[in-house]
Amino acid sequence: MKTVLTIAGFDPSSGAGVTADLMVFAAHGLFGTACITALTVQSTLGVLSTHPVSNEILSSTLDCLNADLPPSGIKIGMLSCRINAIKVDSYIRQLRLQHSGVGRGFEIPIVLDPVLRSSSGRELLDPAGIEVLQDSLLSIVDWVTPNLDELGVLTGRPVDSRGDVPAACAALQDRVAEKSGGHHRLGIFATGGHLDPPDDFLMMPGGEGIWLPGERVVTQSTHGTGCALSSAFLSRLVLGDASQEAAKAAKRYVSEALRTAVQHGLGRGPMNHLWLLSNEKDQVSMAR
Amino acid sequence: MKTVLTIAGFDPSSGAGVTADLMVFAAHGLFGTACITALTVQSTLGVLSTHPVSNEILSSTLDCLNADLPPSGIKIGMLSCRINAIKVDSYIRQLRLQHSGVGRGFEIPIVLDPVLRSSSGRELLDPAGIEVLQDSLLSIVDWVTPNLDELGVLTGRPVDSRGDVPAACAALQDRVAEKSGGHHRLGIFATGGHLDPPDDFLMMPGGEGIWLPGERVVTQSTHGTGCALSSAFLSRLVLGDASQEAAKAAKRYVSEALRTAVQHGLGRGPMNHLWLLSNEKDQVSMAR
Repeated sequence: MKTVLTIAGFDPSSGAGVTADLMVFAAHGLFGTACITALTVQSTLGVLSTHPVSNEILSSTLDCLNADLPPSGIKIGMLSCRINAIKVDSYIRQLRLQHSGVGRGFEIPIVLDPVLRSSSGRELLDPAGIEVLQDSLLSIVDWVTPNLDELGVLTGRPVDSRGDVPAACAALQDRVAEKSGGHHRLGIFATGGHLDPPDDFLMMPGGEGIWLPGERVVTQSTHGTGCALSSAFLSRLVLGDASQEAAKAAKRYVSEALRTAVQHGLGRGPMNHLWLLSNEKDQVSMAR
Repeated sequence: MKTVLTIAGFDPSSGAGVTADLMVFAAHGLFGTACITALTVQSTLGVLSTHPVSNEILSSTLDCLNADLPPSGIKIGMLSCRINAIKVDSYIRQLRLQHSGVGRGFEIPIVLDPVLRSSSGRELLDPAGIEVLQDSLLSIVDWVTPNLDELGVLTGRPVDSRGDVPAACAALQDRVAEKSGGHHRLGIFATGGHLDPPDDFLMMPGGEGIWLPGERVVTQSTHGTGCALSSAFLSRLVLGDASQEAAKAAKRYVSEALRTAVQHGLGRGPMNHLWLLSNEKDQVSMAR
């Protein structure tokens, strides 16, 4: 059973952040570890406040986990502030060096979900932190999973309609290639949950783009949808899927997690992260 | 699907603390929310450091969750420091008042796992915090789940052998009754994992004590065993079991989680919290 690491925020209502990511990993038969970048106070009604974890704790946690439970894949979510984005950037650079030193040409997949703002409007990464993403971190991860707003912020151009998406992805990919001195081709899994139909666009590292058809699931339980898609995509990559298959499987996973969700709370509740494991008829009898 | 809350520490290696508790709740078909009292830096090799969360964040998190996702049961684990123990104490007192105000005589079950020290020897609750437990918090929870060391600290007398356990439980129950002005009868689920045989002792609120036979499972994956037993016990109480049945079911749950664990890390790794849901043969095919 492989180990995967999530570096993200903490959501006490279990809809998003590290606890949701750990459930997604578990649903895919993977063992998850977690490094919290920031505590948030939130419920299904929205984010009330965010509190970055100190750089010392972040640093010590990443080193401690890496020494004992080295990851086979990494998901990066909310980073909260510039200093934590820089720490994560240097951790990933150090890992990449370690792996290239092994001489096997093997690199673990790293997926970054650019969590910039909550659905309720709260800033989840400060502007100086967004610059760290643009100027450095995106050059060393394999995939980024922005929604249309995030794609707009990362490219500095509005992305409002289906027609804007392919060009914005190409612009982001070119920009990252340029920042990395021309050698890094970032893969982009742009999520179009607010488009009609809600299709996603997959821009392969080689520059080929394809639309992945989406379906609208009518539910109030949409808290952390982007988090889960990104973690499910990483999970499938770690399990050995090629990127297109991984993206399609992640979409199926999220659709079913939405479809089978039970309503919790008064607002946007959590999805059913563990549906892949659920076997409700056996559950009670096995416990007895 | 009922909501249960864990108030405990955070373990990045997923063996103990809130992320393990959430898995235990999920395994029992319950929805878990979480309030972190302290971040820890740890792996399967032990606890490196602990960092209490500020009282303001703790307070705001409990209020935020309670307004949107009121719990049907609460597990209290690591409290870290006096000021956080006092905050949790006042939160529970406020909840108890709310429920008595409803006039239904209904009270949600609350189980406290007195996490005082890690297996690797690090202090997880300061001495002033232990006094808050002894003088106040134990008087308003329904059950406490100490191991023999913790029972010794809480009673101020050594608990080394099987023969010491019933008298120590009686002494703790009497002490708490006295502190509460005579009206509160604390239930005690004393875990004898280090006894041979590793039997547990259940002291009912009414004073009746019974031994629950345990079995030794040979595995290195014993990280967070106490956490999980306590959370599984709470889960069964929330699902409606009487206390003896809940205790027996919790023991079966933990034994199977130990037996089916896969080794992770170089030290004491996590148990298989989700064994109740696992259906490995279907897992991959359902994902495709």
